[in-house]
Amino acid sequence: MPSTYLYELKMKVRDYECDLQGIVNNANYQHYTEHTRHEFLLEQGISFADLHARGIDAVVARITMQFKQPLRSKDEFASCMNVRKEGFKYVFLQDIYRLPERTLCNRAKVEIVCLVDGRLTRGVAELDALVPPETRS
Amino acid sequence: MPSTYLYELKMKVRDYECDLQGIVNNANYQHYTEHTRHEFLLEQGISFADLHARGIDAVVARITMQFKQPLRSKDEFASCMNVRKEGFKYVFLQDIYRLPERTLCNRAKVEIVCLVDGRLTRGVAELDALVPPETRS
Amino acid sequence: MPSTYLYELKMKVRDYECDLQGIVNNANYQHYTEHTRHEFLLEQGISFADLHARGIDAVVARITMQFKQPLRSKDEFASCMNVRKEGFKYVFLQDIYRLPERTLCNRAKVEIVCLVDGRLTRGVAELDALVPPETRS
Amino acid sequence: MPSTYLYELKMKVRDYECDLQGIVNNANYQHYTEHTRHEFLLEQGISFADLHARGIDAVVARITMQFKQPLRSKDEFASCMNVRKEGFKYVFLQDIYRLPERTLCNRAKVEIVCLVDGRLTRGVAELDALVPPETRS
Repeated sequence: MPSTYLYELKMKVRDYECDLQGIVNNANYQHYTEHTRHEFLLEQGISFADLHARGIDAVVARITMQFKQPLRSKDEFASCMNVRKEGFKYVFLQDIYRLPERTLCNRAKVEIVCLVDGRLTRGVAELDALVPPETRS
Repeated sequence: MPSTYLYELKMKVRDYECDLQGIVNNANYQHYTEHTRHEFLLEQGISFADLHARGIDAVVARITMQFKQPLRSKDEFASCMNVRKEGFKYVFLQDIYRLPERTLCNRAKVEIVCLVDGRLTRGVAELDALVPPETRS
Repeated sequence: MPSTYLYELKMKVRDYECDLQGIVNNANYQHYTEHTRHEFLLEQGISFADLHARGIDAVVARITMQFKQPLRSKDEFASCMNVRKEGFKYVFLQDIYRLPERTLCNRAKVEIVCLVDGRLTRGVAELDALVPPETRS
Repeated sequence: MPSTYLYELKMKVRDYECDLQGIVNNANYQHYTEHTRHEFLLEQGISFADLHARGIDAVVARITMQFKQPLRSKDEFASCMNVRKEGFKYVFLQDIYRLPERTLCNRAKVEIVCLVDGRLTRGVAELDALVPPETRS
């Protein structure tokens, strides 16, 4: 488990995210991790919607997600992330912890590539600037 | 209850649409009715996405929805609609029936207006053409 | 427009809630208003999930929703509500305002009834206690 | 690419599943693959909801998902699956192809375990029966 994260967002389960098993439906963890990445970008002055309007689309190429413990109605959680660059890819390592005891609930590795006008690129400067230098490969 | 509908789409509940009460979450009826309208339009050769690309946005101004009987996991249903024009508005009357016994589950009245480049219009010709003549007011 | 609300929840649009028109998909306003009601209940010590586990289901019988202005990516908003009792029904009046300028975006009237073990009731005491006395009819 | 699948379900993109990039939001592929598994189970006479009611929860432990090509508004697709057993896990290999040309859009490996009354088990007989004998490890 990483000792520090680049960004952390506190969220709370919404009842409509729970399914008939009484736990958060799996697809919502993708929503949580996406929202966390977008909020991180916004904090850095980068908007996913504005990028799209300029012809730049950051798209997910691959996700690996481990479901450790389910989140349930009323749970609060911290959605945490780090990011590094690997070749063309931005690799986000994202952990979701139930609060207040910080139990690891979900661990995701999300690999993102940049399309400019629909073509794969090496990435864009404003996203590169977000990656901590020591993690660039 | 109308004896006939202009369009009818058969669908089936997906488990992720059910919430912790074991019934379809209310917001999904908006999804069902939206999907039904878009499929109706497509059948008439009109694409919601293409309209948007041309600067024409059909937007919902008002919805009234009555929840009669809940749909549950495994249920199949018929999503039925009629449409008429009232002034600037396209008024969709949409009923959802559980199959095979055709129990009325949801009844919606959806009022839609057309924005062209963001401005309210009297409607557009290709949508007007879909409205049965005897229902135009 | 009411001058005061019983409860107000600040939220923020998540990008996955926006559709191909670039605006929040209509069904999400039902999600927002549902989440607001459940958070209000929780603040009063009442859990929707716990009610369900005890055989009490608060279900929406009818919704009327006016879409005034669309919410978009990055928008923050206040989801506000009042509640009154009308016969068997709990009637929630819910307004969503875009912040910081407090533009009215969505206005909903949500009528809720209580089922106990699947049968319609006059309501339950713990919900009745939430309704301001002067609004009981 | 497998030459045959145990089960295949034809579906169609719904517009509300598309996000502001105009493509199906990633989380919906989890929905598509989940719905496909549940329909496969139903066809075999096994209901996810009924299993839950009996205290048996099939839960996803891990997902790996590759996003090859985006699905868009109006696309039809085939959601295909195979399943094998690996120790305690049911491993679903799931491919989504855009129709009619059968372009691979999404490839998922979904690892599922069975909880009985909340405790991890070796699996349950009725699910074991679904796994082709030659794939059991």
